[in-house]
Amino acid sequence: MIKVSINGYGTIGKRVADAVLKQPDMELVGVAKTSPNYEAMVAFKRNMRIYVPEENKEKFISAGIEPAGNISDMIEESDVIVDATPNGVGAEYKKIYVEKGKPALFQGGEKSNVGEISFSALCNYDEAIGKKYVRVVSCNTTAMLRTICTTSKVSPVKKVRGTVIRRAADPKEYKKGPINALVPDPASVPSHHAKDVNTVLKDLDIVTMAVISPTNLMHVHLLDMETEREVRREEILEQLLSTPRIVVVPGKAGINSTAELVELARDLGRERNDMPEVMVFEDSVQTKGKEVFLMYAVHQESIVVPENVDAVRAVSGMSKSIDLTNASLGIRKGYII
Amino acid sequence: MIKVSINGYGTIGKRVADAVLKQPDMELVGVAKTSPNYEAMVAFKRNMRIYVPEENKEKFISAGIEPAGNISDMIEESDVIVDATPNGVGAEYKKIYVEKGKPALFQGGEKSNVGEISFSALCNYDEAIGKKYVRVVSCNTTAMLRTICTTSKVSPVKKVRGTVIRRAADPKEYKKGPINALVPDPASVPSHHAKDVNTVLKDLDIVTMAVISPTNLMHVHLLDMETEREVRREEILEQLLSTPRIVVVPGKAGINSTAELVELARDLGRERNDMPEVMVFEDSVQTKGKEVFLMYAVHQESIVVPENVDAVRAVSGMSKSIDLTNASLGIRKGYII
Repeated sequence: MIKVSINGYGTIGKRVADAVLKQPDMELVGVAKTSPNYEAMVAFKRNMRIYVPEENKEKFISAGIEPAGNISDMIEESDVIVDATPNGVGAEYKKIYVEKGKPALFQGGEKSNVGEISFSALCNYDEAIGKKYVRVVSCNTTAMLRTICTTSKVSPVKKVRGTVIRRAADPKEYKKGPINALVPDPASVPSHHAKDVNTVLKDLDIVTMAVISPTNLMHVHLLDMETEREVRREEILEQLLSTPRIVVVPGKAGINSTAELVELARDLGRERNDMPEVMVFEDSVQTKGKEVFLMYAVHQESIVVPENVDAVRAVSGMSKSIDLTNASLGIRKGYII
Repeated sequence: MIKVSINGYGTIGKRVADAVLKQPDMELVGVAKTSPNYEAMVAFKRNMRIYVPEENKEKFISAGIEPAGNISDMIEESDVIVDATPNGVGAEYKKIYVEKGKPALFQGGEKSNVGEISFSALCNYDEAIGKKYVRVVSCNTTAMLRTICTTSKVSPVKKVRGTVIRRAADPKEYKKGPINALVPDPASVPSHHAKDVNTVLKDLDIVTMAVISPTNLMHVHLLDMETEREVRREEILEQLLSTPRIVVVPGKAGINSTAELVELARDLGRERNDMPEVMVFEDSVQTKGKEVFLMYAVHQESIVVPENVDAVRAVSGMSKSIDLTNASLGIRKGYII
């Protein structure tokens, strides 16, 4: 059993914790939380061990949460730490992981040099095997890489021009905006997504532009990919339909928005209405000579969860993970409905 | 077994269908749907029988849904019909229910004279027993009635002055606004909520004012109730804490918004992140002489679901329902966390 702990119990951390609990070969040591809010209260009620900064112990105890120890204790007891702390904090914690000789994963909000490798399971799983420090790329980059590497199976993708329409905040966040503006992010070219894709696919010619939109459900990407040879729409669609972690939203389902994708997730009984799969709109998949066009939605809260689970196995030296992760988490392929 | 069918499979209908499936004394005949979208596709995949208008059968078949019959067939096969069709449509269908001699429930969007009685389980369950046509009041009215009838157990409520801050649309709806305006609803006094409360509590002095706000998660109510005698905050809080279908959001949980209430529902593993309980903010409960002030959130998609289940039993002549409904649906009381 791989003993895994989660440092940072927010949007990503809580989901990776739940995912670890579902792995037959992993054990959850516990989760680290800095303030005793409702999220910590629910985790404690669910019998997770809560590790806290030494100086905050009293605060937790008066909120009815008995800490299992401090964060340093948690790191000691772990084989692998999944760092899901806020952007930039992971790099600080890395010093402690290194000092204690523990392998660790970082999230895409950290600079790419925090890890020995940036990771996307469908593109470069094998390169991460046995590495000690791995950075799982961000939600947008994960989605783009899944799509590009899948398309490349039909014919290698030589060039990508992409538009990222970003959600402005996560559903639980009520202090972040914008509420009524479109915000070029940034108003210069390229956006960081292209550079981040290049941390995994180093030689790809890719340019992205991004805009923040006042919504909190999902991102939407619009891609124009150029392949080595001329491809047919049917080939691309078939490849998308047969690749796990990608689902196709059928035209006949009358789903025209991210709002309805969330409603579908609720109707399907998905926990927390999570959709870790890239959701490709079927009717958007089009080809023109060597160009492939498509549009898909990205659930920013959950898409990197399976990648984190895979990366835990990769740093533990295991060569096979993707199928097991998909099966344990109920991650789908094909038409979503 | 009471054979129940659901006419109209939208926000309310889909939830009542799921709730009926969880009742030990009910059987779901099927659900009626007019168009074959993703909601119908999921219901069909889950083995619900789908009844459709005769003229739309072909459309359903080409979407891969084999209809079980037409809506008239469904009504014939049922002991009770839960009508969850759009506002005003229920009154049209009533003619068919009457013609076929079938008891039926209607939702709060219908005019109050559609039923022999307007219904709120905690206020007037007994009056509905054996009635044939019952109107379950709307989400806002249900929440207000639960709160008033619960407060009245401490000391009878004589007067209510209330503010309703309404959500603008449901999460799945993407064609309805406003997106950036506050809309007095209407800019006259009182709003219809006061009149609707009076359909159940006929002699209560109540005035409400309402504003639509650009959010789709929940409504929020701010009440000022006057009781017969002087009351203490502790008495009110104790009564709220011991009443099922009402939960108290503890001050220490750091929950300051409807956004976090939805996140809590997700963390608690609630299906579709539903919260059918009235959610009272603990620190908002205050008293001043005979006045009781409080603030609570209302999950518009799910709050009337337990009331619909109870009303099915009431029209079937059964005197006890509330505890069974709460147990079968996992409906809570006390501190929510």
